[in-house]
This record gives sequence, structure tokens and C-alpha cells, in this order.
Amino acid sequence: MGKKRVDKGTFYGVGVGPGDPELITVKGLKLLQKVPVIYIPKSGEESGSFALEVVEKYLDSSRQEIIDLVFPMCKDREGLQQFWDQSSRLILDRLGLGLDVACICIGDPLFYSTFAHMMRKVSEGDPNIPIKIIPGVSSISACTSAISLPLVQAGERLAVIPATYDPEGIHQVLLGFETVVLMKVNRVVDKVLPILEDLGLKKKAVFVSRATTDAQEVVWDLDQLRDKRLDYHSMMIIKKHS
Amino acid sequence: MGKKRVDKGTFYGVGVGPGDPELITVKGLKLLQKVPVIYIPKSGEESGSFALEVVEKYLDSSRQEIIDLVFPMCKDREGLQQFWDQSSRLILDRLGLGLDVACICIGDPLFYSTFAHMMRKVSEGDPNIPIKIIPGVSSISACTSAISLPLVQAGERLAVIPATYDPEGIHQVLLGFETVVLMKVNRVVDKVLPILEDLGLKKKAVFVSRATTDAQEVVWDLDQLRDKRLDYHSMMIIKKHS
Repeated sequence: MGKKRVDKGTFYGVGVGPGDPELITVKGLKLLQKVPVIYIPKSGEESGSFALEVVEKYLDSSRQEIIDLVFPMCKDREGLQQFWDQSSRLILDRLGLGLDVACICIGDPLFYSTFAHMMRKVSEGDPNIPIKIIPGVSSISACTSAISLPLVQAGERLAVIPATYDPEGIHQVLLGFETVVLMKVNRVVDKVLPILEDLGLKKKAVFVSRATTDAQEVVWDLDQLRDKRLDYHSMMIIKKHS
Repeated sequence: MGKKRVDKGTFYGVGVGPGDPELITVKGLKLLQKVPVIYIPKSGEESGSFALEVVEKYLDSSRQEIIDLVFPMCKDREGLQQFWDQSSRLILDRLGLGLDVACICIGDPLFYSTFAHMMRKVSEGDPNIPIKIIPGVSSISACTSAISLPLVQAGERLAVIPATYDPEGIHQVLLGFETVVLMKVNRVVDKVLPILEDLGLKKKAVFVSRATTDAQEVVWDLDQLRDKRLDYHSMMIIKKHS
């Protein structure tokens, strides 16, 4: 008798939205409640698990395997590589057994998410694994909803850049776009404020962190941000014509 | 006896996502099923109603008032102004009676949405009306999910611009950003293709329309787009390092 062929599981990237558990999509929720294996990658930058907090009430650990992996703090490429290899092997094992695996992503899986790494690793490990993405509400939409500020309107241009980009680069982008979003601004506020002052844009900017969660913070007077310990999930939105 | 004060209704902007009805958020769905008045603005560019298609199965016209307004085709500012005035008066009437009104927005209410107009009009008409936004999955996230392509990863920069922008402007932005999204590319493909050819980026670009719907179209060979009638809900994503 020949060996019975097992159909491979599907690897899902599920965007669960920015933080409010009800901002998951109906599609994402249905999938999370159905798949046998849930994979929750967590950034080493955080002590708790934001991702798990968001989806916890939807999961059932009595019938679902919940794999909870904290990224190592190591900055070296080799250490990170090993971590990605290990994590993807865990996932590939389950997929090889025919089990569907859902990887939880805060926000949207394809917008500044570590899911892109995992997707590539899984695909390299077995090119025959089906990969499906369920998009999610991004942290940017969460921030604009928190402050009721249109991000861009017809005819306007938007730039989204890491706040850790070089100051000259940030300066140039601020000159050329109606709306600019600076991602992960928490560690570089003291570098960003002088640029905004130079361009007369300090009053056109707003700082938002953990939008849509109970810990949401919105700061319009940017001077309040100086020398403060700021949340990792933060951004600044600069709108010239607001 | 004094006149009894009626609490004003809340004006909600509800992002219903990019097209697949299951890509509405749990929060958005709950609200849509609860509010007494639903306002569905429709672009004159379309014959049917995309917005209504997305939410129709969630609504109950026996107990909910569904106000369905098609934008006028007029290009003159005055005609449009009249239209906005009329529409906002309809909404303000209901809000004044204490009824909550939800305005349906394809994608996210604050990302290239006509909701921003309506929000301003309602606010001008009565500054005491509470306005709340429920963010939604944007058309950009829908497009990247359709093609399983990471939009931006750590360290990368994103620009989103209307494809109708001047060619020199598009050229400059393509030079300066790792990922560029050209919105509403349907009418200007013949203008955009030569720019991509000049920069050697034609094979790094993909055209997507109506992502997540049954009418979804993904075109990697951009030459197929020439002289074709393209859908209004379309965009092009150009990723240099893909």
C-alpha cells in the first residue's frame, strides 16, 4: 500500500487591527475561531503581549494550540536568523501535518509587520504551502479615527516614513507632501521636534500612541513629549493643511 | 412645563472595508445593525452602488432608514456645494431628533473618503453633534493581501499619491521612495507607463482593482492595460526591492 498523501495546511496572516479587539474583521474573527494552530509572534520591545491581549477572548486553548514566541533581544543578524529558522520550522511541522496555522498580526499583516519575514521563511521551507492574507485595520487608520482628522483627501499626497530616518530625509519629505506620518517616533522625538520647528509645522503635528486601546494617548502640544518615556506603538501625523 | 430637551444623535463614520462584506470590523458591523439611520453616499462615477452591495446583507430596511444619495455628475463647485448642503441637512434633521446616523464609507472613513466633507458639513451645521469614527481596512491593505506582497517592511518608506498628479512629480516620488502607491490609476495608465519605463520600474509594478471582491483584477504585465477600459477602484503598487 502506498503512503497516504496528506494535504498541506494553509498559512494565514491575520490582521487583527490596531488594538481594540472589536476592530478585528468578521473574516479574521471567523478564521481565528476555526484554525487549530495560532501563532503569536511578540516583539521583544514589549514586556507583555499586546497581540495576545487583542485576540485572547476569541481563542480556546482547550482545542487550539497557541504558539507564543517572543523575539530575542539580540541585535545580531545571525541570532535573529536562527530565531526565524526555529519559528518557521515549528510552523512548517504543523502545516506538513495538514493543520492550518494562523499568524496573528497587530494592524495589517503586510504593513510594517514581521509577518513578511515569516511568510518568506515558510515559503522557502516549502514552496507548496498555500499562503493567504486577511487584511486588517492599520495603526494609521486607528490614529486618525482617534483624533477625527482626515489623513488625506482628494488630490493630496501622503508619505509614511520611519521616524528613525535621517533628519535631512525627514526634512525633505515634510517639504514635499501634504501629509506625513512618522512611524515609531517614541525614541527620536528630540530629533524630530527641531525639524518641525524649523519648518513651522509644530502646531500642525499630533502624537498618538496605542490608538483605540484603553492606553490611548493623544498629544497636540508636542513640547509635552520632551524627556518623557514614550510608548513603542507611537506615531506622529503632520498635516500641513489642517 | 418646559420643553423637554432632546439629546442629539451621534454622527458615525463607519469604514466598511474594501469590498468583501466580511472585511467589515466587528465593531462596524454591530453599529450598522443598531443605528436607526444609515447614510450611503455614492460616487457618480459608478452605475451601481458598491457601498450598498458591501453592507446590504447587514441592514434591515423594515426598521432602519436607509438614505441613499448619488453624487451629482456636475463638476462645478457651486453645484457640488449645493449637494453637500442638502445632504448634510438631511443628516442634521435626524441627528437633531436624537437619532444616531451612520455614514457608510468604503475602505477607511479618513483615507481619501468623501466622508471628510460630510463630517465638516455636519460639524459646521451643529458644532454640538458628537462625531465618532470606526476605522476600516483600506483599499491598499486589500490590494497587498490580494497579491501577498509586503507593502513596506522595517526601515522602508512609502508614498501614496493620486496617479493624476503631474508626471514630473510622480517621477520624483518614484526616485525617492522604496514603495509607491498610485491611487485611481484607471484614467492615466498611458501617462504612467512611460514614467515607469524611463525608470526601469515597469516589472516592479502591479495593477490591482476591486481587491477582495468577486470582480478583483490583478495585472502584472502592465502592457495589457493599454487602451483598456479600467475600473474606477484601481491602483498601482510599485515596489523597488520586490
